[in-house]
Amino acid sequence: MSSPVGLHRVVTPAGVLPQAAQRLDASGPIATDEVRITVERLNLDAASFHQLRSAHDGDGDAVRAAVLAIINERGKMQNPVTGSGGMLIGTVDEVGPDSPLGLKPGDRVATLVSLTLTPLQITDGLADWDGLSEQVPAKGWAVLFGRSIAAVLPDDLPAATALAVFDVCGAPALTDRIVRRYDSPTVAVLGGAGKSGSLSLAAAARAGARTVGIVPNEREQQLLQSVGIADHVALADARDPVALAEAVTAALGGPADVTVVCVDVPGCEHGAILATAEGGTVIFFSMATSFPAAALGAEGLAADVTMLIGNGYLPGHADFALEIFRAVPGVRELFAVRAAR
Amino acid sequence: MSSPVGLHRVVTPAGVLPQAAQRLDASGPIATDEVRITVERLNLDAASFHQLRSAHDGDGDAVRAAVLAIINERGKMQNPVTGSGGMLIGTVDEVGPDSPLGLKPGDRVATLVSLTLTPLQITDGLADWDGLSEQVPAKGWAVLFGRSIAAVLPDDLPAATALAVFDVCGAPALTDRIVRRYDSPTVAVLGGAGKSGSLSLAAAARAGARTVGIVPNEREQQLLQSVGIADHVALADARDPVALAEAVTAALGGPADVTVVCVDVPGCEHGAILATAEGGTVIFFSMATSFPAAALGAEGLAADVTMLIGNGYLPGHADFALEIFRAVPGVRELFAVRAAR
Repeated sequence: MSSPVGLHRVVTPAGVLPQAAQRLDASGPIATDEVRITVERLNLDAASFHQLRSAHDGDGDAVRAAVLAIINERGKMQNPVTGSGGMLIGTVDEVGPDSPLGLKPGDRVATLVSLTLTPLQITDGLADWDGLSEQVPAKGWAVLFGRSIAAVLPDDLPAATALAVFDVCGAPALTDRIVRRYDSPTVAVLGGAGKSGSLSLAAAARAGARTVGIVPNEREQQLLQSVGIADHVALADARDPVALAEAVTAALGGPADVTVVCVDVPGCEHGAILATAEGGTVIFFSMATSFPAAALGAEGLAADVTMLIGNGYLPGHADFALEIFRAVPGVRELFAVRAAR
Repeated sequence: MSSPVGLHRVVTPAGVLPQAAQRLDASGPIATDEVRITVERLNLDAASFHQLRSAHDGDGDAVRAAVLAIINERGKMQNPVTGSGGMLIGTVDEVGPDSPLGLKPGDRVATLVSLTLTPLQITDGLADWDGLSEQVPAKGWAVLFGRSIAAVLPDDLPAATALAVFDVCGAPALTDRIVRRYDSPTVAVLGGAGKSGSLSLAAAARAGARTVGIVPNEREQQLLQSVGIADHVALADARDPVALAEAVTAALGGPADVTVVCVDVPGCEHGAILATAEGGTVIFFSMATSFPAAALGAEGLAADVTMLIGNGYLPGHADFALEIFRAVPGVRELFAVRAAR
């Protein structure tokens, strides 16, 4: 009996989800709702790679041995110190008849669920990797469960570009869904010149919104203005609630119906709430968001705003983000500038 | 010029919100959208009182002097160590003509915004307080801004009971709002035998839901069963995702449309997500909620669920909670049992 979230692959401790498991079983035939991927490359999470490199004084052979030991012991790539994993690129080898993922053998895919919950076996001893970069050429296989996420790499974009888009693809999809609930919506995106921010701005515009992109400095301001994806661009420190609310209100003629937080600095909760209209929605995508600061902030401001924890998954999110990326030249320009920096 | 969030009362540092201010100005006439309250009693936040008592070795006179010094220096009661405040009870003295709060002179009220952002002056040196309890009899006045929250204390309930209801009144109001968006909804409440949990269960039932209350031990199970406010009561550790999802699914015949998290222990995010149906909503009211755990958990489980940061404020939330409390005998029983423990 297979479980759509992979419980049948958990070895120890019994009964936990794969992400919490000490060890997964990556061997054997796949279940009827699973998919097997032939691995081509692992992308280690930056925090994980940095920790391993430091722990081994930059000795690539030692880092390689450490990663190999983790995968052999755990049946997945989850750094025991940082708890983080990464993702992988590979080719679909076999698809169970009941898999709902829509993949077929030969598809070149990126997995969009973390390596921390992906059963993985390595067969080449990572022989082609020097241990000096988080990009790990690898031979072996990985297993996707019934409930999992993988995106087919498009033919028209370099893999690195597609991965950069996939990395933030939840933001434009959720922005689109929320913005469409409002009539004549106005949208503020904090961190509008970033990758998730620019895709969110473009998604909001396609959903019919007037938009303002908020940026923290003149360089970002010039960048965002030059690519032309926001109706307004305003300079404000998102950690300063009063300044932020004034900037948004000045640009949009009032507080925003939807405020999207894409800046990864702590302390933006109160500003986002204050910049949002009564009955509006704040979508927090920043992992630096403090749950208590948001909850208590809204109460202290007597703000009737809906506050969403940005879910990185929506059905079709990867294709949606690629579609925006292809259709909006300004987003492509901005990604190119960021990649070149 | 007055600001609805009280910016005009901030003395230092300039330009921050009242909660972040070092010092507020509690003096002078009220603005046209403000309300002045004659103070009767402060309820200090438990963490704040505990810190002060420890710092002064339980010496009541020293604790009283410390609280007085804080209020005199800051123009508000915000413990500089814990950052927390509390709330107050008093009588409406004067209402500005533009106040939107719906109060009138003579109303006996509880403020539902924190003392950390409420301008406050004490005139009796807290002479009637022994410094040994967080209940502080006090004479003086406080100011409410245009955007603020105060609830009139009802005639038919003891003040302590009304305050206990007000303390969690955001939960039933938001539960009601969300549950009404679903057809034939099913609702799981984690921590169903608690105060916010029981009000949320009753609110869900009134909104037409079939409900299950999840409890962590047999004592809570018996309590919740005996008061009869949930269609089902199930025993499960909310920190164990698989066990929790199985308990919810067994009780409701499938995952819940809406899952309400009212248990103040860390680690309930993945379980709440796994127990919720695709297209469903998780409302997190627990201050122990980890933002990254929720965001990454939903992604790892490929779960298309909406995740809400429980906002403690909705218009009319205090009256709504009192209405449920009065109408549902089981909720009253449960509050009485908890108060007696």
